[in-house]
Amino acid sequence: MDKFRNFFNCSDRERAAFEAGIKMGTIFHQFIGTPVSSRNAELLERSIENSIMVQPFVKSCTVRIDKNGLGKKKDQYDYVSLLGEMLEVSIVIRYNNVEVRAGMDYSEEHNYPIMFINEIKEVE
Amino acid sequence: MDKFRNFFNCSDRERAAFEAGIKMGTIFHQFIGTPVSSRNAELLERSIENSIMVQPFVKSCTVRIDKNGLGKKKDQYDYVSLLGEMLEVSIVIRYNNVEVRAGMDYSEEHNYPIMFINEIKEVE
Amino acid sequence: MDKFRNFFNCSDRERAAFEAGIKMGTIFHQFIGTPVSSRNAELLERSIENSIMVQPFVKSCTVRIDKNGLGKKKDQYDYVSLLGEMLEVSIVIRYNNVEVRAGMDYSEEHNYPIMFINEIKEVE
Amino acid sequence: MDKFRNFFNCSDRERAAFEAGIKMGTIFHQFIGTPVSSRNAELLERSIENSIMVQPFVKSCTVRIDKNGLGKKKDQYDYVSLLGEMLEVSIVIRYNNVEVRAGMDYSEEHNYPIMFINEIKEVE
Repeated sequence: MDKFRNFFNCSDRERAAFEAGIKMGTIFHQFIGTPVSSRNAELLERSIENSIMVQPFVKSCTVRIDKNGLGKKKDQYDYVSLLGEMLEVSIVIRYNNVEVRAGMDYSEEHNYPIMFINEIKEVE
Repeated sequence: MDKFRNFFNCSDRERAAFEAGIKMGTIFHQFIGTPVSSRNAELLERSIENSIMVQPFVKSCTVRIDKNGLGKKKDQYDYVSLLGEMLEVSIVIRYNNVEVRAGMDYSEEHNYPIMFINEIKEVE
Repeated sequence: MDKFRNFFNCSDRERAAFEAGIKMGTIFHQFIGTPVSSRNAELLERSIENSIMVQPFVKSCTVRIDKNGLGKKKDQYDYVSLLGEMLEVSIVIRYNNVEVRAGMDYSEEHNYPIMFINEIKEVE
Repeated sequence: MDKFRNFFNCSDRERAAFEAGIKMGTIFHQFIGTPVSSRNAELLERSIENSIMVQPFVKSCTVRIDKNGLGKKKDQYDYVSLLGEMLEVSIVIRYNNVEVRAGMDYSEEHNYPIMFINEIKEVE
């Protein structure tokens, strides 16, 4: 089923964790910098989610952009470039019988957009 | 009205051409690489258009992604990364009394995604 | 000499301004988000400059990344993602007999990374 | 030592695999699209490597860009935008006592830039 299986020398759980990491890196480094205001924030959320859903082994993806302080185009320059600290992401990866729940969120304490694994479990 | 006017030492026509160029560079370099299949291509088109619309002095923006050969997720790897040659873009920039129509399209003859200016004109 | 000349309907000055805008959009949207610390900031500056130099009609390009507050890898997370407000850019575009000096700099007053044209002039 | 440890609910091996995945996603989605010719390809390789080295838990990173067919700036348009299929990457991630060797390479057979894990092992 997975035509690239023989490229990997690890367990299904480790593979699923690797795939989750790829998606986190993708979201951050593909979309950071995108122009965003209150006008396009929700469309951008859906577009990021759906771009991630076409990648391999993604069961679900939810992206929320922090809209506090987003501009309403009062003047021509009233928008920002998407920052990592504005993103809150949850994904579920399914690889064979393993499911990983992972995500990204901003840690104010550490001023860092942390990417993490909530849970890895066997499923049927 | 334009709070950054004094940063510029050029005509309104030249300024409008500069703004058009910025948007072309933005579209290409922000979105090339985005995972795309037949499932999310239209949503991605709308999302690129709306991201550009929040930038300064954009009157309209139309983005078309070439969907020939886009995958339908027959298997997990049936998608591509957005390429410059898949993009066809038209924008209208309005700066004071000047309008620029510009765009991007793939030249097969030269194997190059050319960015161009169709017209610059004074409007009321 | 310029094989795409017939795609354009504008003066050489306007064309040169358009080309300058493309390069500004390229720098911002290609490189914002790149992991940067005091260890790789200078190499990244040179790499951005040289990437822009391979684009059409660029005579020179200087990129400076603000290194105030850049991490020194005291711990694993002591780095940042490149922000627009950290960039100071100067470029010279040459198209036929026209030269454009343009740039990007952060306006603290307006909290905005402004892209601008310093000068457009005829040269020999 | 790892201040974000309590964000994770998985083994050190799975964590290391996740970190390797993040770096693969970062390389692909940050740098695809960068203008490249024979003039700047090696500098870009070093710059990607060093950008990844400032991310957490990276012990080493080697990036090779396929230079076959890269332009030599014979004319203004003689360069390309970096493609996934041009990249060959090897990284070593170290998390606590676990080392992961991972990489990215282009599969001609499948026309796909595959990211993979070569080995995960305990080290001292």
